[in-house]
Amino acid sequence: MRENVGMFQNLAVLGSGLLGASLMQAMKAKGLCQNAYAWSRREETRRNCAAQSWCDGVFDTPAEAAAAADLVVICVPVEHIVPTLKDIARALKPGTIVTDVGSTKQLIVHRAAKLMPEGCHFVGSHPMAGSEKTGLDHASDELFTGRACFVTPLSQTDPEATARVAQLWHELGMSVTQIAPEAHDEIVAHISHLPHLLASVLCDSLASKDTHWLDYAGGGLRDTTRIAAGAPALWKEIVSQNREEILRAMQAFDQHWKRLQEVVETNDMDALEHILANGKSYRDRLS
Amino acid sequence: MRENVGMFQNLAVLGSGLLGASLMQAMKAKGLCQNAYAWSRREETRRNCAAQSWCDGVFDTPAEAAAAADLVVICVPVEHIVPTLKDIARALKPGTIVTDVGSTKQLIVHRAAKLMPEGCHFVGSHPMAGSEKTGLDHASDELFTGRACFVTPLSQTDPEATARVAQLWHELGMSVTQIAPEAHDEIVAHISHLPHLLASVLCDSLASKDTHWLDYAGGGLRDTTRIAAGAPALWKEIVSQNREEILRAMQAFDQHWKRLQEVVETNDMDALEHILANGKSYRDRLS
Repeated sequence: MRENVGMFQNLAVLGSGLLGASLMQAMKAKGLCQNAYAWSRREETRRNCAAQSWCDGVFDTPAEAAAAADLVVICVPVEHIVPTLKDIARALKPGTIVTDVGSTKQLIVHRAAKLMPEGCHFVGSHPMAGSEKTGLDHASDELFTGRACFVTPLSQTDPEATARVAQLWHELGMSVTQIAPEAHDEIVAHISHLPHLLASVLCDSLASKDTHWLDYAGGGLRDTTRIAAGAPALWKEIVSQNREEILRAMQAFDQHWKRLQEVVETNDMDALEHILANGKSYRDRLS
Repeated sequence: MRENVGMFQNLAVLGSGLLGASLMQAMKAKGLCQNAYAWSRREETRRNCAAQSWCDGVFDTPAEAAAAADLVVICVPVEHIVPTLKDIARALKPGTIVTDVGSTKQLIVHRAAKLMPEGCHFVGSHPMAGSEKTGLDHASDELFTGRACFVTPLSQTDPEATARVAQLWHELGMSVTQIAPEAHDEIVAHISHLPHLLASVLCDSLASKDTHWLDYAGGGLRDTTRIAAGAPALWKEIVSQNREEILRAMQAFDQHWKRLQEVVETNDMDALEHILANGKSYRDRLS
């Protein structure tokens, strides 16, 4: 294995689902850790993980896994991140860096700062590489390549730990942005959580109509609603953790939605074309 | 060229954009017409089309093209379909079948029925094979394969003409549904026009925020907003032609959207999970 400036000795991934298992694969493949260890809540997942070539060992408890590591990455669902941190805090070796992959940051990062023992460092992360597909079986060492990643230190977070976490995601091919947890939560409420809720509620609305209409669905409906297939329990927790920012994003959208309804009701086709053109010009920047 | 039951002698495509040019390519490739002729409004498009191997001739006026054909397919933007029909009606040979590819049907089909000369037959079509990419240069003889297509005769429409048009789309690999124009317009208002407007207004709403946020966009935002890149002028006309049904679809969505807002505002996470699960169960049927 080649030596690497950003390298860690022992990685412990807590929660070897899509993101956790992909991270183990990717870090091993790129020589970013010597050993990749894991813990998962379900025994079946632990057994499955232990059988993989990129897994150097599986532990029965998160604390045991964390104790073996100099980098701990918490990859459990958002509502379990802080409880998992509580479980492992006392077991961490001095100098250990802990990060997570949660879709919300404010609540997690502030609680984590209080939980970390002296000499250990928590740096929040949000690699935007999730999918409506979940689980170890969909994992890939290319999951992170070309995607965006947020790293969300607080002002008191150790700068070296922040730099090492940012470097890690960078080495995995991600475009890394360092930002305050509050700003992160505002951004993802708009560009991730709101689109998800719109896709879900569009499906929820269409479900009240003739479901045979689905037979006629074109690529448009397919694409606009793809993310509505995401796990309801997971997304409920994301909304719960980022509720205030999501409400603000929903209110901002609602103003534009009401204006669109008014424009269609009053048959103001010039105003409609203006809205469509404004939307297109925004979307064209994404391509 | 192999003989084919559903075959036409001379196809005239009026408007050789994405759909029109793809239709010429596909019908020639599958031996569904002997000759494929075209007319386009822009001289540049006519020249471009004339240079293609699958084009047997280009005419300077829609009437001349239509006069040469036993199948005319009107592929101009929706608001130009009825005016184009007016332009060609007197030129049509007895027995000619005319269809279109417009995204709305009620208004077009009823006006067309009045415009057709004795012995000629108009049968409305809506092949759901559009794209946010437009123009002859994106055309493909596989554009229609595996997609849904509506054929929308009136009660007085000649059954043989209807059958031949339905057969044509079927031979192009489409899943064909015969349905009344009114029912068609209700369905596409919900599964095509509403999703389009939501994608547009989401982009319109996000454009009022920091546009650098786009740098962090994940696959979710990318997919949910893809169709917002569609041509504003085209979509304005679709909304204009199907306004009543679209308003009803928007109102139905609005009820579910208001309920979602209420649920997030009141922190009713059980109700939220129910909405998300209902949306997921609908979306899962699309996969």
